[in-house]
Amino acid sequence: MKTEHLNAIENAVKAVLGKKKINHFYFVACGGSLAFMMPASFIFTREIDIPASYHPANEFVHMQPKSLGPDSVVITCSHSGTTPETVKATEYARSLGATTIALTHLEDSPLWKAAEYPLHYDWGKEADSSDLNKGILYSLIFHILDGISPSEKYKKGIKSIDGLDTAMKKVREQFKDVTAQWGKKYKRESLIYTMGSGADLGETYSFSICLLMEMQWINSSCIHSGEYFHGPFEVTDFDVPFIIVKGLGCTRPLDERAYNFCSKYSEKIMLIDEAEFDMSDIEEEVREYYSPLLTGAVLRSLADALAYERGHDLGVRRYMWKMEY
Amino acid sequence: MKTEHLNAIENAVKAVLGKKKINHFYFVACGGSLAFMMPASFIFTREIDIPASYHPANEFVHMQPKSLGPDSVVITCSHSGTTPETVKATEYARSLGATTIALTHLEDSPLWKAAEYPLHYDWGKEADSSDLNKGILYSLIFHILDGISPSEKYKKGIKSIDGLDTAMKKVREQFKDVTAQWGKKYKRESLIYTMGSGADLGETYSFSICLLMEMQWINSSCIHSGEYFHGPFEVTDFDVPFIIVKGLGCTRPLDERAYNFCSKYSEKIMLIDEAEFDMSDIEEEVREYYSPLLTGAVLRSLADALAYERGHDLGVRRYMWKMEY
Repeated sequence: MKTEHLNAIENAVKAVLGKKKINHFYFVACGGSLAFMMPASFIFTREIDIPASYHPANEFVHMQPKSLGPDSVVITCSHSGTTPETVKATEYARSLGATTIALTHLEDSPLWKAAEYPLHYDWGKEADSSDLNKGILYSLIFHILDGISPSEKYKKGIKSIDGLDTAMKKVREQFKDVTAQWGKKYKRESLIYTMGSGADLGETYSFSICLLMEMQWINSSCIHSGEYFHGPFEVTDFDVPFIIVKGLGCTRPLDERAYNFCSKYSEKIMLIDEAEFDMSDIEEEVREYYSPLLTGAVLRSLADALAYERGHDLGVRRYMWKMEY
Repeated sequence: MKTEHLNAIENAVKAVLGKKKINHFYFVACGGSLAFMMPASFIFTREIDIPASYHPANEFVHMQPKSLGPDSVVITCSHSGTTPETVKATEYARSLGATTIALTHLEDSPLWKAAEYPLHYDWGKEADSSDLNKGILYSLIFHILDGISPSEKYKKGIKSIDGLDTAMKKVREQFKDVTAQWGKKYKRESLIYTMGSGADLGETYSFSICLLMEMQWINSSCIHSGEYFHGPFEVTDFDVPFIIVKGLGCTRPLDERAYNFCSKYSEKIMLIDEAEFDMSDIEEEVREYYSPLLTGAVLRSLADALAYERGHDLGVRRYMWKMEY
């Protein structure tokens, strides 16, 4: 990780740890940026007794959570730094005295200016994963965890960021053929379900709403694997395609149960089993939290393959950025 | 409301208010029962500074939230009282010393026995709405709110439960023709999106996963109206059907914005605008929280109409209750 990135993170963490009291961590953003922070909220809920939750930015601003105030930490993200709802949410939280940390690719953007502690991240294929949005977020949250409740585990969480880039490259290579074949086989589908849970839910949600719905105009829904048997599973049939993620973490039994049932009745399942990942570059104690990032890399390869086979570039939009809304 | 129901609620609320400290309200259930408690979590987040969240029961048990303990209140629900995940979640929470309150139709069921404070609710068309699951839940949460932070508003929240049955009947009558026509018009659809936010999100989620996916085998996804513009809206087209709820509450601007855009590009929109409801039987200050219950009645009528037109009874299942899973 670049020194200036690490310095900015440490500076933000110092502010968080310097608070007399922390009553709540709010993760606030829109769409893909919201999805990207969902694992952070999950990890905090599991690891520390300070409440954490994630909110669509526009809902956050309008609902005005009662406990939002000087004791709160609000972490926001917008790639361009211009998403109006996220900028407004950051300004609103800051006006109430909350500590505001914002992740963005664009320095001096409206979001950058709105937050007390803006954090820059790199973008593009040449960048090291540790300097991309997910690397910066994970460094931030493991630094916060280690500050609140110092432990070897969280120090390993921080350290593992250095292995992320290699791990991502390995998993991309490992799934290269599988993802290419999936694109060929499923290019005619007009609807694809995704399913996951725990720290993986953000990745499956993001794939549904951003990669499939937004970038491929393919209908989709992200099903929580713990909810599958309580309604959604009745749509399962031989010709209904699912992408199922079996995580490494505590909710793996939910994913396994959903996969075991679904694979009996659907002939169109793409399984991403994180137990198959080579995670030797990530410390063992935190692999369950890092594996969703690798799943994200596999999902992205699936989207690339689908886009190629369908001749529908991932950058094409009909509404977004094209008109007022 | 029946005296025995009210007594049981008051007894549970006494236990909640008698706690030295409350660190978290957890709403925990599966599928439709989870959806039904989503507005409670939203209302608490907006009204009081004690954190509240909702969780799929199986995830709750496996993730083991760090702050769950003697200071927590865990509210669970299962209609039959036999949903294994919900029973287990209740037992788990109770074993950690949390105050456990469970709503169920079946007295002496496993869930009934698992919880320290079981609450019975009536079922069926003859029952008064105040004694059905939603009436019991709303009485419980407004009693808790009024105990924590006594106010006229919350007393009106409690009082309004008496007007719920009349309000429900009025809205069913008001939307009778519209819902019947919708069933006729959309009976050939294989996919229907729902959209809502705030206190309405549970109703739109429930309609997607239970009424459409489970009971009609129709593909669906519930889109948060604050997330619509950050991905999902790119699937909007002239022939893509949406059911959009415009709520009465603080997130109405999100719903309006989504509806305004969506209705320009889709010719298949069913709008449920809560501003059109006759809510004279509900106190004005709490209408924004009661209106989702009336939306639920309209949505149920839509499902009834669809089931009738498609000859696919809402009680038909292919997997649920038919096999091990």
